Amino acid sequence: MDFDYSKRVTELQQRLTLFMEQYIYPVETEYYEYVESSDKPWESHPLMESLKEKAKAEGLWNLFLPRSYGELSPGLTNLEYAPLAEIMGRVLWASEVFNCSAPDTGNMEVLARYGNEEQKKEWLEPLMNGDIRSGFAMTEPDVASSDATNVETSILREGDNYVINGRKWWTSGAMNAHCKILIVMGKTDPENSDRYKQQSMILAPLDTPGVTVVRPLNVFGFNDAPEGHAEIILEDVRVSAGNILLGEGRGFEIAQGRLGPGRIHHCMRCIGLAQRALEEMCVRASSRTAFGQPISKQQSVREAIAQSACEIEQARLLTLEAADKMDKGGNKAAKDLIAMIKIVAPSLACRVLDRAIQIHGGGGVSQDFFMARAYSLSRALRLADGPDEVHMMQLGRNLAKYYADQV
Amino acid sequence: MDFDYSKRVTELQQRLTLFMEQYIYPVETEYYEYVESSDKPWESHPLMESLKEKAKAEGLWNLFLPRSYGELSPGLTNLEYAPLAEIMGRVLWASEVFNCSAPDTGNMEVLARYGNEEQKKEWLEPLMNGDIRSGFAMTEPDVASSDATNVETSILREGDNYVINGRKWWTSGAMNAHCKILIVMGKTDPENSDRYKQQSMILAPLDTPGVTVVRPLNVFGFNDAPEGHAEIILEDVRVSAGNILLGEGRGFEIAQGRLGPGRIHHCMRCIGLAQRALEEMCVRASSRTAFGQPISKQQSVREAIAQSACEIEQARLLTLEAADKMDKGGNKAAKDLIAMIKIVAPSLACRVLDRAIQIHGGGGVSQDFFMARAYSLSRALRLADGPDEVHMMQLGRNLAKYYADQV
Amino acid sequence: MDFDYSKRVTELQQRLTLFMEQYIYPVETEYYEYVESSDKPWESHPLMESLKEKAKAEGLWNLFLPRSYGELSPGLTNLEYAPLAEIMGRVLWASEVFNCSAPDTGNMEVLARYGNEEQKKEWLEPLMNGDIRSGFAMTEPDVASSDATNVETSILREGDNYVINGRKWWTSGAMNAHCKILIVMGKTDPENSDRYKQQSMILAPLDTPGVTVVRPLNVFGFNDAPEGHAEIILEDVRVSAGNILLGEGRGFEIAQGRLGPGRIHHCMRCIGLAQRALEEMCVRASSRTAFGQPISKQQSVREAIAQSACEIEQARLLTLEAADKMDKGGNKAAKDLIAMIKIVAPSLACRVLDRAIQIHGGGGVSQDFFMARAYSLSRALRLADGPDEVHMMQLGRNLAKYYADQV
Amino acid sequence: MDFDYSKRVTELQQRLTLFMEQYIYPVETEYYEYVESSDKPWESHPLMESLKEKAKAEGLWNLFLPRSYGELSPGLTNLEYAPLAEIMGRVLWASEVFNCSAPDTGNMEVLARYGNEEQKKEWLEPLMNGDIRSGFAMTEPDVASSDATNVETSILREGDNYVINGRKWWTSGAMNAHCKILIVMGKTDPENSDRYKQQSMILAPLDTPGVTVVRPLNVFGFNDAPEGHAEIILEDVRVSAGNILLGEGRGFEIAQGRLGPGRIHHCMRCIGLAQRALEEMCVRASSRTAFGQPISKQQSVREAIAQSACEIEQARLLTLEAADKMDKGGNKAAKDLIAMIKIVAPSLACRVLDRAIQIHGGGGVSQDFFMARAYSLSRALRLADGPDEVHMMQLGRNLAKYYADQV
Repeated sequence: MDFDYSKRVTELQQRLTLFMEQYIYPVETEYYEYVESSDKPWESHPLMESLKEKAKAEGLWNLFLPRSYGELSPGLTNLEYAPLAEIMGRVLWASEVFNCSAPDTGNMEVLARYGNEEQKKEWLEPLMNGDIRSGFAMTEPDVASSDATNVETSILREGDNYVINGRKWWTSGAMNAHCKILIVMGKTDPENSDRYKQQSMILAPLDTPGVTVVRPLNVFGFNDAPEGHAEIILEDVRVSAGNILLGEGRGFEIAQGRLGPGRIHHCMRCIGLAQRALEEMCVRASSRTAFGQPISKQQSVREAIAQSACEIEQARLLTLEAADKMDKGGNKAAKDLIAMIKIVAPSLACRVLDRAIQIHGGGGVSQDFFMARAYSLSRALRLADGPDEVHMMQLGRNLAKYYADQV
Repeated sequence: MDFDYSKRVTELQQRLTLFMEQYIYPVETEYYEYVESSDKPWESHPLMESLKEKAKAEGLWNLFLPRSYGELSPGLTNLEYAPLAEIMGRVLWASEVFNCSAPDTGNMEVLARYGNEEQKKEWLEPLMNGDIRSGFAMTEPDVASSDATNVETSILREGDNYVINGRKWWTSGAMNAHCKILIVMGKTDPENSDRYKQQSMILAPLDTPGVTVVRPLNVFGFNDAPEGHAEIILEDVRVSAGNILLGEGRGFEIAQGRLGPGRIHHCMRCIGLAQRALEEMCVRASSRTAFGQPISKQQSVREAIAQSACEIEQARLLTLEAADKMDKGGNKAAKDLIAMIKIVAPSLACRVLDRAIQIHGGGGVSQDFFMARAYSLSRALRLADGPDEVHMMQLGRNLAKYYADQV
Repeated sequence: MDFDYSKRVTELQQRLTLFMEQYIYPVETEYYEYVESSDKPWESHPLMESLKEKAKAEGLWNLFLPRSYGELSPGLTNLEYAPLAEIMGRVLWASEVFNCSAPDTGNMEVLARYGNEEQKKEWLEPLMNGDIRSGFAMTEPDVASSDATNVETSILREGDNYVINGRKWWTSGAMNAHCKILIVMGKTDPENSDRYKQQSMILAPLDTPGVTVVRPLNVFGFNDAPEGHAEIILEDVRVSAGNILLGEGRGFEIAQGRLGPGRIHHCMRCIGLAQRALEEMCVRASSRTAFGQPISKQQSVREAIAQSACEIEQARLLTLEAADKMDKGGNKAAKDLIAMIKIVAPSLACRVLDRAIQIHGGGGVSQDFFMARAYSLSRALRLADGPDEVHMMQLGRNLAKYYADQV
Repeated sequence: MDFDYSKRVTELQQRLTLFMEQYIYPVETEYYEYVESSDKPWESHPLMESLKEKAKAEGLWNLFLPRSYGELSPGLTNLEYAPLAEIMGRVLWASEVFNCSAPDTGNMEVLARYGNEEQKKEWLEPLMNGDIRSGFAMTEPDVASSDATNVETSILREGDNYVINGRKWWTSGAMNAHCKILIVMGKTDPENSDRYKQQSMILAPLDTPGVTVVRPLNVFGFNDAPEGHAEIILEDVRVSAGNILLGEGRGFEIAQGRLGPGRIHHCMRCIGLAQRALEEMCVRASSRTAFGQPISKQQSVREAIAQSACEIEQARLLTLEAADKMDKGGNKAAKDLIAMIKIVAPSLACRVLDRAIQIHGGGGVSQDFFMARAYSLSRALRLADGPDEVHMMQLGRNLAKYYADQV
């Protein structure tokens, strides 16, 4: 649990910060304006590919994939990646530039860990290269997906194929023109008496007949183009039996393995958003005058700043601890800490962003600042990958048992 | 302070509720879909005019204008109007159907109270008829407008005209194709030693040369078409001297008179939004199952419902008290109560809506439910017409003085 | 729901306020000092009897008992009593002066409503006269008494007697030397398949053999002498069969009837405490200077004052609404509103008192101000008569069902 | 920032935990009962001296004094001490057993750092030996002491003496029979144009003529015997000029140096209190049944547990970070982090204890559990050593400036 940044991390932080300052912040707003006025909103921004090339050339690429993945990995631990993800997280669309954006990172981890050679060749390679993008189709509109055993999509074996039927939503990234492949969670064995063996995960190329992207879902009015969150109908979608991941009945196991890292990456980025909101509220409060003095001299503003700083630093440390535990004990050993940070970080970001919005006045909710978008993302993250309540349920249950057993 | 609903109010509640059920709820979502896919987003929805005709025919028209305005008014008190505004407030775009939507209601009150005969004839009449709409141009992007003395727009007398120069934003409604007239707040006498005598209000038709509607401002990701919130440049806008309201230096006085009723109308509608969110969270929680039981059996969900109900009922009563005080003592006597309800209601709506979102899962932030839009409006209302902090500053100051003086 | 104070109420408010100013506030602190340094802490303060005589002489006596009790009542409704209880509540020990203190008021209501003539003669009469005091023995240390069906005390019929065995705690008032009678809740029929028919209530004079007052329970560091909260052992306590209230199996029914009024009285007094805390924080903030200005000019202090005022006024109105509903529809019809005010008022008082403490600095937690005592009482009231969670459980359950049934 | 516990710390944690289990927890309640029923409440508990001997014999002594003090120190860093202080903090009176209790630790640091040889010989030695105790007399009843420049006590040079006049309160520990020496803050140069040069600190033996301990101050009804918090009158208290610490006008400087470590020690102990509250709420919730299931299965209880765990772990990490910074950069470099932990930890403890109280029902506020006392201490710590608001003011001001200067 040594949280001092290593020399390599410090150097990467500096390079990443410089990259953000040179290439990302200057076009941040323009990026949104372009996408929103585009008649092809699900195409990527024309700048994206060149930014990716630049990042790749500078070795700021795939930093998310931990050292434990061997040759595939650029060699950082989760602990080392955390402060870098925080920097990327400061701009909502920046992570893609470094091939570190959700849901691709989680999907790449799934393929790297659980995929067979063929699956890796076909899907992991182009994903690692940033040539294609991917979706993770788990949540369903018709059931409370906070309880993953509710999933109703069926994956039935027929000869050499699996046939998939169901309806998914919140499949982030699947609106994007580059999205080529879905990892679909469904039930291969809905009658299995072990509720955690009913599910499987399977690869479904987006161009398979029967896959229909119905519509994008909005988050507080944002369609989050060019990635989007898709509602998808899967109707007699027939894929090769070789597309199953790890084997029938292993869906829950993969979900557990996938969601841990995915969750903590979101949290790292949330801390970046919150930190940026803190900085911008300081700047704004110092530059505006009301009732005869800069707003920054109002005690309530100072308290907003101080509280935000306290909360951010604590969440940052907790994230580092969770990352460190993942590095040293694996995702399973870190499960309670990952739950903790998932409970903490999106809420923290919401609170800090809300304060920053208030200090910015009307501008705070508008397109002129990054806060409204960032709030929308953070708020959605209190629901994505398991709502706060499910994580608190599990953590509370575990702790109650643990301490009650001690006496 | 008799809060029992009179026979007339009860009857109006029933008719209004029926109207909402017959004509509004069924097309609520369609309305948004039409507007968002329209290539003329600032035109009103084609249904609107016929809905207005229906409402007018049924006498559900201009109910907002209190009895004290004599013949112009349909004869309700503020206290009587409150529960009706709550019902209209349940759908974001419904108030317009009844000619009770902001900012027109506030502008009509200004014209009815402070306008001369000519001004009334030209602008109040078509507004009361619902033929045109209007904007209220007060807030400016370049200064902290929470302190109204910061306003920098200049209104200078030149012969028989006034010449207006300045930049405004958050002029709600001014994007709309029907918007014909602005009430502009600016300084006629910036050097006046009494900071509250520097401002005036003036009528500026939108088609006056020099008025440029620059762009719509978004609230989170919503552009709130077909009304919108405009940024407006006023460049050498020349209007007749007769357009001044009440006289030079009376801007603050009018603002005080206008903002009280405007604020409380917003609050009434906020309570409608919160009430609807409560109802929908109850319905959703009862219809979804997770971890073996309906979500409504989870203690934390019950607590969310109970807390919301407690908060809503309290805010409702406080709103009634404020309305009653306005009826009996006038807006000035009710100023502390209006501040209180302005502090309470938008925050309340945000909290209840946030809980409803959480209970709805991913759907809660999407276009499939009304919550995301309603949250955006409520959140913006914590800033509009004076941010929470300004109302708390004034109320806190007044109370501190009042009680300290007692000893 | 006419919340304007009637002429009679206004006049009683004035007389009560005058009484408090003349006789109570001046000796408030002295009262505590005397009790705490007394070697007979459970004797009443020597002043108490003369204060009671004064109050009785002035007709400020038994005001709590609603008009519906006929001749026994001084003739006020619950709605009329509310603002009077608020005034009495401003000093923790003041209600007794007016014979309006818990648990006697609730016990008197039980006797007046459910007692037979003999029981009334023996116990209600001296209670109404203020000659004796009483206890209500319901909560037990060995079970979660938030679920009243957990009560384990047994009340067994043996010939013409009942024999009571059990252990009670938090029997408020039972430490007091004047306490002569307990109303005990226990099970006469623990095997009854209807869990709400197992319980009965019975009168047990404190001097019955087998009744042992074990010790006082403290609330934070206060023993709340001279009333106290007793832990009591009931060991083969034999009382006449005529001491049963209303009949076997009616305990729950009585509890429901008793707790409603008891709860709302507590809430009315909580509002008095909160109101006083608000006033004192205004006074203190205006009289102390830090960092170059009176503390009352700090924006965060103004926000504390404003928030407190908003919360108090809302809770006050909700209490009036609940009281009015009790008057018009009875305790059962008012049950959801009583639950609401019980959820709201003690928490409100805690929050406002906490802010007042903070504004008073170190003094705030000390014996030099009333806040620390008042906080302790308010905090305990979040547990007494059903913890917040139980009221939220029931209210949330009822509302979820109500609104889900509407669709 | 390596937060893994070193071998030495791990071993000390185990020994300390064992010591607590063997000698402290078993007599925890007895300790309070003895003190409260004693007619000499300000004498120490008879067990204390033997417990201190045991702790000294086991080398669990003076662990607080950091390695930087050379020979005086047992050799731990602040970072190493933190988890040990957390363990001691679990019982309110335990730290004294290890000679690690406030205000002695802070006073010893002052003497060790700023005292001259004579002062050390006379006062530091017996303090380090645990032979005497001490007080720190800074706060005054007549001024808002949150602003330390308000201090009004005068320290005037007269020949070879200083003469002290003033009134102090909240001088913790000064009620205790073993307390022999006060460090008094006062003004030697009230007219100095540099407000931070007006103050000095001086040693005043408690038996000096003119020192009158007036009374103990209570915290929520607790007098915190046998330590207590004294109100003290200093009337023409004449001490030798050699008693001045560091020199005239250095009082602020010493205060800054003293309060940092003192604050963080309190925070470490707060985390111990919160951690214990978490553990006890888990135990209680698992052992009590209501409405047909253990309370620990209620979702709201699980959320209370989960939230508490998240908050505790974050505060713990932040404390370690602050301690580490003190070790590496000194108290001044760590000032913002110390402010952060001071803002965070007492509030955290209050929140967690409040939840634990609620889950314990009535018992939670009583003497049967440790929560009520612990809450009182934690609540007082939101005021002691600077109220939350002052720390937020300074931190918010510093951060606003820092980030505004970056752009």
